[in-house]
Amino acid sequence: MNNILEQCGDLLIKVREKQPLIHHITNYVTMNDCANVVLAIGGSPIMAMDKNEVEEIVSCSSALVINMGTLNENNVHSMVIAGKKANEIGIPVILDPVGVGATNFRRQTVRKLLDSVQFAIIKGNMSEIKTLAGVNVTSKGVDSNTDDIGKELIARNLANELNTTIVITGKDDIVSRGKEVVVIHNGPELLTKVTGTGCMTTSLIGAFASVADDFTIGGIAGVMLMGIAGELAYKMLLKDENVGSFRVKLMDCIAEFNEQTYIDNGNYVIAEK
Amino acid sequence: MNNILEQCGDLLIKVREKQPLIHHITNYVTMNDCANVVLAIGGSPIMAMDKNEVEEIVSCSSALVINMGTLNENNVHSMVIAGKKANEIGIPVILDPVGVGATNFRRQTVRKLLDSVQFAIIKGNMSEIKTLAGVNVTSKGVDSNTDDIGKELIARNLANELNTTIVITGKDDIVSRGKEVVVIHNGPELLTKVTGTGCMTTSLIGAFASVADDFTIGGIAGVMLMGIAGELAYKMLLKDENVGSFRVKLMDCIAEFNEQTYIDNGNYVIAEK
Amino acid sequence: MNNILEQCGDLLIKVREKQPLIHHITNYVTMNDCANVVLAIGGSPIMAMDKNEVEEIVSCSSALVINMGTLNENNVHSMVIAGKKANEIGIPVILDPVGVGATNFRRQTVRKLLDSVQFAIIKGNMSEIKTLAGVNVTSKGVDSNTDDIGKELIARNLANELNTTIVITGKDDIVSRGKEVVVIHNGPELLTKVTGTGCMTTSLIGAFASVADDFTIGGIAGVMLMGIAGELAYKMLLKDENVGSFRVKLMDCIAEFNEQTYIDNGNYVIAEK
Repeated sequence: MNNILEQCGDLLIKVREKQPLIHHITNYVTMNDCANVVLAIGGSPIMAMDKNEVEEIVSCSSALVINMGTLNENNVHSMVIAGKKANEIGIPVILDPVGVGATNFRRQTVRKLLDSVQFAIIKGNMSEIKTLAGVNVTSKGVDSNTDDIGKELIARNLANELNTTIVITGKDDIVSRGKEVVVIHNGPELLTKVTGTGCMTTSLIGAFASVADDFTIGGIAGVMLMGIAGELAYKMLLKDENVGSFRVKLMDCIAEFNEQTYIDNGNYVIAEK
Repeated sequence: MNNILEQCGDLLIKVREKQPLIHHITNYVTMNDCANVVLAIGGSPIMAMDKNEVEEIVSCSSALVINMGTLNENNVHSMVIAGKKANEIGIPVILDPVGVGATNFRRQTVRKLLDSVQFAIIKGNMSEIKTLAGVNVTSKGVDSNTDDIGKELIARNLANELNTTIVITGKDDIVSRGKEVVVIHNGPELLTKVTGTGCMTTSLIGAFASVADDFTIGGIAGVMLMGIAGELAYKMLLKDENVGSFRVKLMDCIAEFNEQTYIDNGNYVIAEK
Repeated sequence: MNNILEQCGDLLIKVREKQPLIHHITNYVTMNDCANVVLAIGGSPIMAMDKNEVEEIVSCSSALVINMGTLNENNVHSMVIAGKKANEIGIPVILDPVGVGATNFRRQTVRKLLDSVQFAIIKGNMSEIKTLAGVNVTSKGVDSNTDDIGKELIARNLANELNTTIVITGKDDIVSRGKEVVVIHNGPELLTKVTGTGCMTTSLIGAFASVADDFTIGGIAGVMLMGIAGELAYKMLLKDENVGSFRVKLMDCIAEFNEQTYIDNGNYVIAEK
């Protein structure tokens, strides 16, 4: 796990070279942002969710991103068949279980997805990850305000249980594939005041995973890029500028990001077991 | 009804303190903007529209916003059951009957909603409100260009008939719960050239209503905040800037808004009966 | 075909005078952008896709834009009945067959649409247009990277076969109604790095077609406006600004566009037969 920042930079170079097609079955609220962030990072987004075509779309894609933000019965069905197809052809599947603790419908859906599909990376906030881990949580909608105790343990255990990479976003971000746990300190508070920054992070992770040998690095590259770009955009804000301008500059910073940006700004520690 | 501006400011403080969860069953065109505006004002948005989960979402929310912009049979059903649940647990329901005069499907839907759900606030343009009031109108899509005659009378009568607060947006905005009529003079013409400013106003009203004892003040706080933020954003436009930059600065101004902004910029009269 | 730039300018003046209602049955990813671009150009957008109301919406509209970006069975049905109604009442129908080569579902849908509806203008990238022309293509999602050879021939032949105006977007844009072929050289590369610029171009074409006697000019006016506005926005970018700011300035430039902007910046040739 040495040279993590260099490895992240290498993935970014690969994404820009290969322009991977990233298939999204995602929510209606932030899908435009997700498409734009994939373009900004050098990938090619496609949003397709009808059961009549998702298998074909998966077949020409390099990764599949499943986001549960605005579930309905139709897209659940599409998620399952697209996820199975992605497993079959060997492209990574990334899950963002948005608001999974909020309703029975979401909990049942995530159970069905976990039973049917092998995920390369699962990314959520602490509340969502705890729900997956079977910990009882009181979810206040899609946000999480639970404490940090046990965060690293939960990530590691769930990664082992599901044989996947777990990314937990929050004040600090945590990435683990069951052994080491990487804690990332990038990302300003203002990112939580713009809708879709979480979904965009998942899309970035999808783009990186599509060219990664090691999904831990893919997860780190995505979550850290959003954090650093957020910090850079925040520093650029002028007087009277707030979330509107921040969102614009965030997208600028993502498009301007290069491998040196990781090295100059990346801030992480590898936690002891 | 004294100190209206101070009461609006108090509601804004309360929203920022309580961060109420505002459940939206809304249209696909502007849902991203609506989520961002709720975050900018200090609330927490959730967009969920599937019949399998809307009652649970309502149950952990502080207000329900129903927007008819892109109706289909599925979301109509969700609107009815979510609205009934909201009434049952006592959280305010806000209706934005977008383009209700345009089609039979919309008129039938609004009739079903009015028969099933008690609304705290209904917000529309003159054409939409006239349709609700049973006045024959020729709707040109979702916009209204009818004259102002009788505006105040229509607002007061419809508020009494439906036992609700009526907000009519236009060059001037009108708010009434059946007795006094408050006429608000804030808001630049350019607001009509950005899609979703009407929907965002409804989302703001939802956030304010969630913490209001008096829904008239909730309605005023929402519509006036959008008007004032629009004026401030308009003044900030540089040479060659137009709707693109206006939209960004509008969101900045909404996030920067505080109780003093109401007092410095609010412009209204209370009309005589 | 003299004075093409003046004719484009005349159409722009007409759109701003008449404020035509442009009905969209379009994709969920970019519908907000499409609504905003129609407003910026002086038109009035309406997005409605339920089978229960599309015929009524068409009946009060001046053009119908059908965009296949996020197909599902419900909106395919709505596209067919809305398209037939538009033909019946004589308003132009514009088709954007997004990603048509990607799946059987899309190819079958476009076949159904072409069999049921007479289109005034069909706009796609080379890959999409080749699919319509029955040329075998390997589509990489919704983008096209095929060569330019035969572009003009394909446009002219397909226009004749389908009795429509064909617009092919790419590095150069091509417009033909079967005889002359107009090649437009406006538009910076960066337009391909923002999602929805293609969909927005189709919406612009819809607005222009709604007031045009000659759909070739309608197609040219739309595609050239996006190209020129892109060039102007690109020139305005400051250091560290990229796709985020570009998108904002693009919308500014579209709203600031006037008939002189065509004359000062339009760059085209009429290709020999």
